[in-house]
Amino acid sequence: MRIRIDLAYDGTDFAGWAAQPGQRTVEGELSTALTTLLRAPEPVRLVVAGRTDAGVHARGQVAHADVDAAAYAALPGRSSRSPEAAAATRLRGILPPDIVVRQVSPAPAGFDARFSATHRRYCYRLCDDPAARDPLRLRDTVLVADPLDAAAMHHAAQGLLGLHDFAAFCKKREGATTTRTLLEYSWTRTAEGVLEARVVADAFCHSMVRALVGVVMPVGLGRAGVSFPREVMIAGIRDPRVKVMPAHGLALEEVGYPPPHLMAARAEEARARRD
Amino acid sequence: MRIRIDLAYDGTDFAGWAAQPGQRTVEGELSTALTTLLRAPEPVRLVVAGRTDAGVHARGQVAHADVDAAAYAALPGRSSRSPEAAAATRLRGILPPDIVVRQVSPAPAGFDARFSATHRRYCYRLCDDPAARDPLRLRDTVLVADPLDAAAMHHAAQGLLGLHDFAAFCKKREGATTTRTLLEYSWTRTAEGVLEARVVADAFCHSMVRALVGVVMPVGLGRAGVSFPREVMIAGIRDPRVKVMPAHGLALEEVGYPPPHLMAARAEEARARRD
Repeated sequence: MRIRIDLAYDGTDFAGWAAQPGQRTVEGELSTALTTLLRAPEPVRLVVAGRTDAGVHARGQVAHADVDAAAYAALPGRSSRSPEAAAATRLRGILPPDIVVRQVSPAPAGFDARFSATHRRYCYRLCDDPAARDPLRLRDTVLVADPLDAAAMHHAAQGLLGLHDFAAFCKKREGATTTRTLLEYSWTRTAEGVLEARVVADAFCHSMVRALVGVVMPVGLGRAGVSFPREVMIAGIRDPRVKVMPAHGLALEEVGYPPPHLMAARAEEARARRD
Repeated sequence: MRIRIDLAYDGTDFAGWAAQPGQRTVEGELSTALTTLLRAPEPVRLVVAGRTDAGVHARGQVAHADVDAAAYAALPGRSSRSPEAAAATRLRGILPPDIVVRQVSPAPAGFDARFSATHRRYCYRLCDDPAARDPLRLRDTVLVADPLDAAAMHHAAQGLLGLHDFAAFCKKREGATTTRTLLEYSWTRTAEGVLEARVVADAFCHSMVRALVGVVMPVGLGRAGVSFPREVMIAGIRDPRVKVMPAHGLALEEVGYPPPHLMAARAEEARARRD
């Protein structure tokens, strides 16, 4: 049977999501915890909605795993709880404090954490005022030495919305499309003086969000006009003026899925499009 | 001349505000930085609005120091900046990342960071839902195993407002009054599911905020009625059912001062009242 796992993590001390030998990764920790919990004969394999890089955080990550139905059903033991509640509570007990399991649930038919997703939402945090720095948020906020024009960055970001080839912002991978639909890309200054980006797309290529933040930086610093990001996108090749911004400012906030009866169709459609 | 320093810190790795031999403290770090900056012949001494305990954070701490006017005026060197801007920038360069200097300013006549203050505002954060934990906020949020009734806690807290003897919530100190005016004590549940207290008083005794949080815990857990905190306060002695809550949930958010022409009068009044 397939289970869905909703989770959050502080990416600071992880070498990213994807399991790598000899490295501390979120996938590695979660797979080990599930394998222990279910006493599985082989390591439980996971599929994730957003394969976050080293240092990237998540508040709304989603993964799925195919597990032995009998072992899963036996989880509550003598307690009256459901297997879902028992799995979530016991995973929290096994996992380190920088990973939080929000929920475990039986996946609807056709659900695929990666390919059924209709959108991903990321947040990026920048602080451009040394006096406004919050020492308790150093882990998820990137410090910038010069003042940024949030309104200009927001304006520039609007030129990137829609269905485009985002090759200029993606690490090229043989045979994979870099065409995506950017649904929302806003910049706002919070009451605390921090700049927050909200970036929503159907899916993102590798390092795309951090390049989308990087491409509006020259605009925010007054070194490029508001049309610069769109020009880079249309040129379609990586531009040395576009910095891939540091990982620790980035957090995956939410993954969206269609209603249960559309899960399988959505997964097929996304698989066909991206390969 | 007297300078005012506004600062923030992540209390996690400090043995509190007050300098102690062989311990890493906020006062120790700031005094050393100021002494270095001003090339003072003796360590610069500091007076602070809120002497936070080990592990307690601050986003709006205020301190003052009496410094050599000539050394202070010479800070900008050949730059065109004011001594205030130069002091703030250079202190940020010297201090570790878990202390942030927000502002340095010349203190108005009669200003005393501790005694001129008219109020202090603290925040306390509790998370009672293991699924709602934010792994990026573990440093300033206390986890509670059982669900809390925020409305009941808020209701109970209102019974403590006003001018009272808070001896039941204070560590007794010979010759010092424990009479304070509690101006605000609210509990709300944030959109993220975290319970936040906002606690405002003219001043607080040692460990008072953490005991004020502790006394509403039995109410939130359904083990005591909403009148319990007021009964404890009126009894006037420390109650074993009242836990002094962990330090890391607490942050000093703001210190209020009167208009400049009332600074000296306020300081005299507060000094007379508390000794």
